[in-house]
Amino acid sequence: MIDKLIAKIKATDAPIVVGLDPMLGYIPNYIKEAAFKEYGETLEGAAEAVWQYNKGLVDAICDLVPAVKPQVAMYEQFGIPGLVAFDKTVKYCKEKGLLVIGDVKRGDIGSTSAAYATGHIGKVTIGANTFEPFNEDFITVNPYLGTDGIKPFVDVCKENDRGLFILVKTSNPSSGEFQDRLIDGRPLYEYVGEKVAEWGADCMSGDYSNIGAVVGATYPEQGKILRKIMPKTFILVPGYGAQGGKGSDLAHFFNEDGLGAIINSSRGIIAAYKQEAYAKFGETGYADAARQAVLDMKADINGAIKH
Amino acid sequence: MIDKLIAKIKATDAPIVVGLDPMLGYIPNYIKEAAFKEYGETLEGAAEAVWQYNKGLVDAICDLVPAVKPQVAMYEQFGIPGLVAFDKTVKYCKEKGLLVIGDVKRGDIGSTSAAYATGHIGKVTIGANTFEPFNEDFITVNPYLGTDGIKPFVDVCKENDRGLFILVKTSNPSSGEFQDRLIDGRPLYEYVGEKVAEWGADCMSGDYSNIGAVVGATYPEQGKILRKIMPKTFILVPGYGAQGGKGSDLAHFFNEDGLGAIINSSRGIIAAYKQEAYAKFGETGYADAARQAVLDMKADINGAIKH
Repeated sequence: MIDKLIAKIKATDAPIVVGLDPMLGYIPNYIKEAAFKEYGETLEGAAEAVWQYNKGLVDAICDLVPAVKPQVAMYEQFGIPGLVAFDKTVKYCKEKGLLVIGDVKRGDIGSTSAAYATGHIGKVTIGANTFEPFNEDFITVNPYLGTDGIKPFVDVCKENDRGLFILVKTSNPSSGEFQDRLIDGRPLYEYVGEKVAEWGADCMSGDYSNIGAVVGATYPEQGKILRKIMPKTFILVPGYGAQGGKGSDLAHFFNEDGLGAIINSSRGIIAAYKQEAYAKFGETGYADAARQAVLDMKADINGAIKH
Repeated sequence: MIDKLIAKIKATDAPIVVGLDPMLGYIPNYIKEAAFKEYGETLEGAAEAVWQYNKGLVDAICDLVPAVKPQVAMYEQFGIPGLVAFDKTVKYCKEKGLLVIGDVKRGDIGSTSAAYATGHIGKVTIGANTFEPFNEDFITVNPYLGTDGIKPFVDVCKENDRGLFILVKTSNPSSGEFQDRLIDGRPLYEYVGEKVAEWGADCMSGDYSNIGAVVGATYPEQGKILRKIMPKTFILVPGYGAQGGKGSDLAHFFNEDGLGAIINSSRGIIAAYKQEAYAKFGETGYADAARQAVLDMKADINGAIKH
């Protein structure tokens, strides 16, 4: 699966993933009004607004980027109707040729991780039939439970040609509270990084492994170290833009082949029309604003990584 | 919320939670056949089987225990129909007077954790209306991202009188891989335990905090230490029964007041009819077998903790 992501990154010349994290506050009023008119001010109404908003965004950016990353929490907050919108969004993005990274951050004991893997990137057999329930291409996974909580996800990736991005060093301000704790003089995230490399070693797909890592753009020095600890691991880098990470911080997340990382931006793209720089697009131009923000992000990042 | 759990533990004399983790292999054939006849061998058919199976279990045990703990992964594996069965199960359990611990192990950066908290234990406002999407009483949470990933959950607990159980030392064999790493001579899980106590300090509800911890029955020595580190923290203890934990291992998870812990069993109860000891109940007696298994578990645990 990582070979498909790399091929798409090369084809679009954009190591960029757009986070589809639809807060109600980001959605233009005209979309919400139309959805509420049809479904009322209900969970179904909110979910319809989310779906229409996403559809506009996906149509506007699908030729520019290799992948999208819907954050499932933003859909789960609207209960079942929200998850139906998540499911529709995943399917629509795949129809449009985008790879889908489900940002689900699941992780549990073995049998439970196996069930999550089945639901998100695997197949479930019911009698004589087989289904792929959510059918994402990649998902994010939490490593706190160790190898036996991760292995069922890795196994499903092997069976079904899918991929993972495992949390190593997260982008948030307090990520260091546990992740930076020193063990024999080295931070925990380095040990987690070593394990990610180990878990991925027999999951290669070309030059990179299907088992990737998450390292926040907000921690460029740690990214530099982790890049070396995990040379064949693709790194999903959140935290660019709204969270504070800049293009110039990102060079060290990439290998010398110009690959090895994909940078996520969510708010900075999908709610670009709310920024002064893109205000001219107006509410009804939210999708065009997102398109321009992707182009600007691409220039920023390629400027920083291509010397 | 923890005061409600304690009142129910006292009323039932059972510090026990039943894990509603319905694998298809546990569900009696007659239930699956009826569900497939109505909905086909589909995700909807599997979800109907899960729901009917759960309903039978809940009816059989609801007067014996204070709470149930549905593991959302077992529902997510059947996609949207599975999550509809999760939602129906939560609502039905609450109607039957049971408290519901949603075993969701969510956790992310601040704004995303806030969305998860909203969806599972909070309220979402849509126009002039307010909804409680999944409406569990407690949920489990993963601490890997640190304080700013936890605080949105704690805030929602305060606003909405709900509770958390935060992973500290998990029950699985490889939990020590990261959780036992020594930092200045003390394992990581002790630091996480200290943080859980700190996060819960201003969330008290009677003698205990609404912010609880998860510590596996399979690690009784660690449980003894964590009990002292987190004296006012209620501990959710998985790993009893099928995972290997015994009643005699559990005494140290409790405080001298006889409270402070609640022991989970899933497979050992809900699939009891598949064990030799309960085979006499047969497939159609699966719910009665579960009831007997709860009574036996209660005797085992109370025998161990009441001297």
